[in-house]
Amino acid sequence: MTHTEKHLKSSDFITDIVIGMSDGLTVPFALAAGLSGAVSSNKIVITAGIAEIVAGCIAMGLGGYLAGRTELEHYQSELKREYDEVERMPDKEKQEVKEIFAEYGISADGQEQLVEEMSKDKNKWVDFMMKFELGLEKPNPNRARNSALTIGMAYCVGGMLPLSAYFFTTHPYQGLLLSSVITTVCLFVFGFFKSKVTGQPPFMGALKVTMIGIIAAAVAFLIARLVS
Amino acid sequence: MTHTEKHLKSSDFITDIVIGMSDGLTVPFALAAGLSGAVSSNKIVITAGIAEIVAGCIAMGLGGYLAGRTELEHYQSELKREYDEVERMPDKEKQEVKEIFAEYGISADGQEQLVEEMSKDKNKWVDFMMKFELGLEKPNPNRARNSALTIGMAYCVGGMLPLSAYFFTTHPYQGLLLSSVITTVCLFVFGFFKSKVTGQPPFMGALKVTMIGIIAAAVAFLIARLVS
Repeated sequence: MTHTEKHLKSSDFITDIVIGMSDGLTVPFALAAGLSGAVSSNKIVITAGIAEIVAGCIAMGLGGYLAGRTELEHYQSELKREYDEVERMPDKEKQEVKEIFAEYGISADGQEQLVEEMSKDKNKWVDFMMKFELGLEKPNPNRARNSALTIGMAYCVGGMLPLSAYFFTTHPYQGLLLSSVITTVCLFVFGFFKSKVTGQPPFMGALKVTMIGIIAAAVAFLIARLVS
Repeated sequence: MTHTEKHLKSSDFITDIVIGMSDGLTVPFALAAGLSGAVSSNKIVITAGIAEIVAGCIAMGLGGYLAGRTELEHYQSELKREYDEVERMPDKEKQEVKEIFAEYGISADGQEQLVEEMSKDKNKWVDFMMKFELGLEKPNPNRARNSALTIGMAYCVGGMLPLSAYFFTTHPYQGLLLSSVITTVCLFVFGFFKSKVTGQPPFMGALKVTMIGIIAAAVAFLIARLVS
């Protein structure tokens, strides 16, 4: 138990980095690739790339922050409702506990004994209902803010890597070539570590992540070409 | 119990639409706004916008598909491990069940009775460990594919709304003005329904969603202006 919980907690930060960087490495790279086939100035690619990174960073970061706040508020309002219900209609709530245990093959006698023991402590009873009836885990109150900052920063760092190629070249085609090399290497390395962290086979995971980036960039390039 | 599960299942589709459309309405809008302050041709804004939508659509859709596949594989490998453990070291697994119930104030006698009853049926026992020790719900095998399509389509539809303004105008400033009006209305309506679905106060929720979009677009506009 303790081990599992520790594992989950330490990986919130890593999860956020993975979320931000997955999109950060892919979308600005593909956008820049798309524009490279349609315009002839690195300046436009860089301007669009930076606008995209800023927009994505704010949308993901602020979006993540508000989603985290909502999760916390939702937990608190459900917690309050569960305390109310346990107070106002204990028999109905006891019946719900029994039904949960019935699903796991516990006999009627066993259900009765369990519910009597559990209902002695209202806090534990409510904790049980929150987790087992509603499937809600108590959220960390700082998670929303930390998550927003981490996801936003990871998106920003991820996005600047493919875009950096356009700073050091003079024509979008050269930029695209260098950007493709940089990003393919970064996607592969990132995919490798991401897979390690999430417990997938690292080499296959790295290939998948790299393929998503390359497919997105290739399709964006072709479609931007067609449009322009 | 049944009611809650139904509620969660029917909202997978809605959740995916919300995920795709949140970013779809915000990021392409902000990118187009950023470029509007830096370039003088609607064609560039449209090309960049379409490249972004394609890139975002593929990154989110394909990313969502692979994440769903990974979740399914992870569940199946943990399920196999749990069956192995129950077979090879039933006493350790019984101890883990007891520890879970000890947390909810169940007496040693109660724990003993419970674990004896539950361990009679290995499938139920393993189901219990999967859900309450590891916190894993059985994923729907079609979820990955459905999720990818829904998120990708929602992103695409969301992104075309702000971009459509640039088709009907001749200069990026006019495009930006019309796009801001269209997108603000869409963000507000979308935020209202999103909040209804997620059980938040709809008016406040709509304001939050609208503010994220406007802030992202304003910052992207200012930074693109500075860069160019």
